Amino acid sequence: MKCKVCREPAIIDIRRHNANFCSEHFVRYCHDQVARSIKEFAMCSPGERLLVAVSGGKDSLAVWDILDSMGYEADGLYVGLGIGDYSEGSGRYVQAFAEQRNLRLIEIDLRESYDYDVPTAAAVTKRVPCSACGLSKRHLFDSAAVDGGYDAVVTGHNLDDEAAVLYGNVMRWQTNYLGRQKPVLAARKGFPRKIKPLVRLGEREMAAYCIVRGIDYQVEECPMAAGNKHLQYKEILNMQEAASPGSKAAFYFGFLRDAVDRFDDDPADDTLGRCERCGAPASSEICSFCRLVQRTEGAAPVSVPIPRSKRKSKAAERAISTSDGVTT
Amino acid sequence: MKCKVCREPAIIDIRRHNANFCSEHFVRYCHDQVARSIKEFAMCSPGERLLVAVSGGKDSLAVWDILDSMGYEADGLYVGLGIGDYSEGSGRYVQAFAEQRNLRLIEIDLRESYDYDVPTAAAVTKRVPCSACGLSKRHLFDSAAVDGGYDAVVTGHNLDDEAAVLYGNVMRWQTNYLGRQKPVLAARKGFPRKIKPLVRLGEREMAAYCIVRGIDYQVEECPMAAGNKHLQYKEILNMQEAASPGSKAAFYFGFLRDAVDRFDDDPADDTLGRCERCGAPASSEICSFCRLVQRTEGAAPVSVPIPRSKRKSKAAERAISTSDGVTT
Repeated sequence: MKCKVCREPAIIDIRRHNANFCSEHFVRYCHDQVARSIKEFAMCSPGERLLVAVSGGKDSLAVWDILDSMGYEADGLYVGLGIGDYSEGSGRYVQAFAEQRNLRLIEIDLRESYDYDVPTAAAVTKRVPCSACGLSKRHLFDSAAVDGGYDAVVTGHNLDDEAAVLYGNVMRWQTNYLGRQKPVLAARKGFPRKIKPLVRLGEREMAAYCIVRGIDYQVEECPMAAGNKHLQYKEILNMQEAASPGSKAAFYFGFLRDAVDRFDDDPADDTLGRCERCGAPASSEICSFCRLVQRTEGAAPVSVPIPRSKRKSKAAERAISTSDGVTT
Repeated sequence: MKCKVCREPAIIDIRRHNANFCSEHFVRYCHDQVARSIKEFAMCSPGERLLVAVSGGKDSLAVWDILDSMGYEADGLYVGLGIGDYSEGSGRYVQAFAEQRNLRLIEIDLRESYDYDVPTAAAVTKRVPCSACGLSKRHLFDSAAVDGGYDAVVTGHNLDDEAAVLYGNVMRWQTNYLGRQKPVLAARKGFPRKIKPLVRLGEREMAAYCIVRGIDYQVEECPMAAGNKHLQYKEILNMQEAASPGSKAAFYFGFLRDAVDRFDDDPADDTLGRCERCGAPASSEICSFCRLVQRTEGAAPVSVPIPRSKRKSKAAERAISTSDGVTT
């Protein structure tokens, strides 16, 4: 297996592109794919200030690394979710990454700043943990970006993530979500622009990127996300991809080309008011985040329900397995 | 396991409805689902003359049986495709069914009437056999219905078929096909109305229906269709359905409710001319069917490439397996 560019031994094969790369040209390939996405979808411009939502996983650290390498002024924002060892470990990966590269990292800890954490919020609201987690992160990313004067929030959603979300939205024809599933969401009153520069890169490529670049990241799946629909959808799409390499990319980019605008029937919601407590955009007097903070007030802290044995994520396993084409 | 209606022992469970039925009430359930589809999508009215496209498989014989039981005037049309033993067997099932019920059956044999068969056409055109097969059947169903003064052509597409076709169209965002994937296609100049009364019933239910009603049908898959995309899509959706019963129905009916009209941007093609050879609607001087007939003229007959051992289809196996809920 030889690098497509230099014919030196390759460390990864990318079946949907029918291409193999050595370390050096794989890194260049990743940067090129990000540059292409940024240009194609007019995500951001040199000189803009970006705020990267970092979780400590491979995708968010990789996108931060890539944007920094490309010369963007990109700061990081880490939200401590209070999910036991998982969150503690994730935070340490983010801190180490930022320190090594002398990058600016903003940290918000849910328990310290808002007196709740994700396990407690899940128990109080009696909903899946991903619900309170997503709500909290969206609110804090948005507020920090608006308050800090950033031009855009960057998230590390990769092609596998976007294809899985699309699959879930299509299986139930969630037309409101379908109309908004774009790699760029323009800024609206009170909301920052949001961009996903990794949409051309797969999960396995991001794991390999981190390995090649020496980025240590949280390889465990979130212990509270186990068995969720998103992971189920990813498995189904992995079967589809194995049967027809390129399926995920055709599905996602075909959607952006030929379908997303057909679902764009939400009027831009500039009629939102402001939350009386925090000033964020809100459809009622108090925004959903502040309602969550109120609901969890005084609740006894709940620990992570299912302590899980340390295990590498499937993606990481695949990325470091020689049988699957990555030999680093 | 007891029948939902009468509490007698049930012979089938239908997970997506969380319901079990005895033979009698299962037959009634099938008839009710067909009646509901006919009404909901305004498929046809009592007194209309229907032409059922019968293949000898479970679906087309079941829909013919159901429509006949419901009092519709439904004749059958069988096209002999010349796929070796498979076609010979299929024809015999259709003939026996029609004779037993004293129903009118029209038979057209590709080799006798047009001097080609599907294996030969596939070899001559160098395309997958399903392509020449579909083209031939569509043309002959349409012509026979128009020439015979029928009000509609009935096909036996079930929920699994429609969901799999939808899945394939969505994975590649085939917007032109998506806009036309409806359980009723209205008649257009030169084309009959087309209806799919089985869209509320799954593959496994149709196999069980035939068993309960004593309908002998071709249980083998077409030997030329093995490994085609449609079967691959069905497998993927079966995984999805196993993880979340009701997924297929939510996917298909959600599409009809919230999405299909968003893809309906084909102007009704009333600008089609007529084929100089056969008079059917055509976008060029000669219609695609007559071009196929011309291309295969004089070609040496090709036999079925891969003779396959007799085996029951997966659906039939499932339907007669007690572990899967059918005990007849």
